[in-house]
Amino acid sequence: MTVPPLKNDRFLRALLRQPVDVTPVWMMRQAGRYLPEYRATRAQAGSFLQLCTNPTLACEVTLQPLRRFELDAAILFSDILTVPDAMGCGLYFGEGEGPKFHKPVRTEADVDALPIVDAARDLSYVMDAVRLIRRELNGAVPLIGFSGSPWTIATYMVEGGGSKEFAIIKRMMMSQPAVLHALLDKVARSVIDYLNCQIAAGAQAVQIFDTWGGVLTPHAYREFSLQYMQTIVAGLIREHEGRRVPVIVFTKNGGLWLEAIAGCGADCVGLDWTIDIGAARDRIGATVSLQGNMDPAVLYGPPARIRDEVALILARFGRGAGHVFNLGHGIHQHVDPEHAKVFVDAVHELSARYHG
Amino acid sequence: MTVPPLKNDRFLRALLRQPVDVTPVWMMRQAGRYLPEYRATRAQAGSFLQLCTNPTLACEVTLQPLRRFELDAAILFSDILTVPDAMGCGLYFGEGEGPKFHKPVRTEADVDALPIVDAARDLSYVMDAVRLIRRELNGAVPLIGFSGSPWTIATYMVEGGGSKEFAIIKRMMMSQPAVLHALLDKVARSVIDYLNCQIAAGAQAVQIFDTWGGVLTPHAYREFSLQYMQTIVAGLIREHEGRRVPVIVFTKNGGLWLEAIAGCGADCVGLDWTIDIGAARDRIGATVSLQGNMDPAVLYGPPARIRDEVALILARFGRGAGHVFNLGHGIHQHVDPEHAKVFVDAVHELSARYHG
Repeated sequence: MTVPPLKNDRFLRALLRQPVDVTPVWMMRQAGRYLPEYRATRAQAGSFLQLCTNPTLACEVTLQPLRRFELDAAILFSDILTVPDAMGCGLYFGEGEGPKFHKPVRTEADVDALPIVDAARDLSYVMDAVRLIRRELNGAVPLIGFSGSPWTIATYMVEGGGSKEFAIIKRMMMSQPAVLHALLDKVARSVIDYLNCQIAAGAQAVQIFDTWGGVLTPHAYREFSLQYMQTIVAGLIREHEGRRVPVIVFTKNGGLWLEAIAGCGADCVGLDWTIDIGAARDRIGATVSLQGNMDPAVLYGPPARIRDEVALILARFGRGAGHVFNLGHGIHQHVDPEHAKVFVDAVHELSARYHG
Repeated sequence: MTVPPLKNDRFLRALLRQPVDVTPVWMMRQAGRYLPEYRATRAQAGSFLQLCTNPTLACEVTLQPLRRFELDAAILFSDILTVPDAMGCGLYFGEGEGPKFHKPVRTEADVDALPIVDAARDLSYVMDAVRLIRRELNGAVPLIGFSGSPWTIATYMVEGGGSKEFAIIKRMMMSQPAVLHALLDKVARSVIDYLNCQIAAGAQAVQIFDTWGGVLTPHAYREFSLQYMQTIVAGLIREHEGRRVPVIVFTKNGGLWLEAIAGCGADCVGLDWTIDIGAARDRIGATVSLQGNMDPAVLYGPPARIRDEVALILARFGRGAGHVFNLGHGIHQHVDPEHAKVFVDAVHELSARYHG
């Protein structure tokens, strides 16, 4: 198969701190419920899970935001919980509820019984989607693959769904740390295979979402979250189709630990909105690129307010390469798509003066 | 009225960075659901709100943890939402649900219609409880009064209850910042009167709980949360009964902004568990004392694990005055009270070597 040349490689270049003409931008959860066309496709699919497991529809929703906005990257439409689902935990979504598992992982025997994922076989629907999206993109922009971090995935597996206090997994951490390590090890090995399969299928960069690492102490974060992300980064294919495959690590509420995160081997560190991106650049900008970091709630504001916030973040980052603009977390479902367009256009328009 | 001499003033001394024999300790939410005697009193009261508004029963649950543990302070049993309730928002708790308001504050007209609290009149049940607790304590340990921060209280008033994304209040912040400022100003003025009445009634230190300041950007935190806490601190009675009344400010997930918080005029900065307390001391320990910062989930661990974590935090803080040991957030409801006892005793036993 011949690979079409990449027409817009700003995103990949910025991840590697190479010069760009304007700051590239994409939005976490850019394929999502704020778009009416997404809601229509999801209704057609029947459920969120059926949308994830149908490569044609997953490709369709991946491409939808690119038809509206001048985004510099596409991101595979999927869910971080496909991995534990493939490990046999039985993912389901109750009506109007968050994700749940039929078989939570609570004991040493539960962990022992878990298989390591063979992603090409167990998650073939994801790889089919990746291949299809790449074909449809036809080189327009790069495609991002992703996974949850082992810690984040494990919180759902052990709690049996979402959590506020993480009482069950923290109880396991305090009382049976070896059991939790065994679980994290199995998830990490599964994630390595999962991401490498995505890369082989055509993902041109990958992001590890550590949504819940920020609920840990500094010491526990290193031991139970960062360590496993480091293992994953070390196990990834880093060159494919003749190009480096950059890795982004994003720990929400990880701003206090940036130096440690930057040392995990990733090319780029994702930032939420609680840290000043100029301060973050001062701390780690010499070794990694930064992705972020506008509060998604700014998109509720009027266009002038959105542009002001984009200008502020660009000014705080300052001149030069190494910034991928993004929201600090996923776009909210009640945001007006026109405001997302204002945001994306403002990044390109207002960033030109910081480059070249 | 004659005031009985304070038998144990470690807590007040440590807040003011004065020498102590051992590190004082208390636990956020120490009067709470993890204690069977609390559950019995709450059942007797009928509901959580009836417990808050009954001074005899509020006094009883305030004192319960002190009968079990060698705590160095009592904290008034109440709720941060009594203030907006007194402003007419109509607080209620659905069965098994979090707090809700019958009349959320959404518009400029809603804000204009809100009264400033006259705490002696509108929250007399709280002042009755404070006076009763002081009498019952009889000088054993100091009594802490408290309030929510204006931002934190406002999140509940605007959202109409608890929230995950704070979409409604952030929309107000982005689109109608002047309306939000008017609301925060009214809440701040109410909180000043509320805390000053608590101090006049006998509270010997006060804590401002900024549970949700950490969901803001650095800039928005200063403008919409910290600014109003600073106004409150400046408006408080700081000397009473011939002693300084120390003020503690606690912003959960505020670790990135410690320098700004330490500059708000408070005597002590509360820390959650995501920051290393040694790093925090290096940053702000010359100007304020620190309170914290063990992950409440450590109390799920076996006694040896709890003692290890206490030892680690004591070692990280190091020698000398200016540390009040606490959890980094409220004690969880499923913790074994015996583990809380291990924690409190370990702080006293293991800290002696760092003093004197």
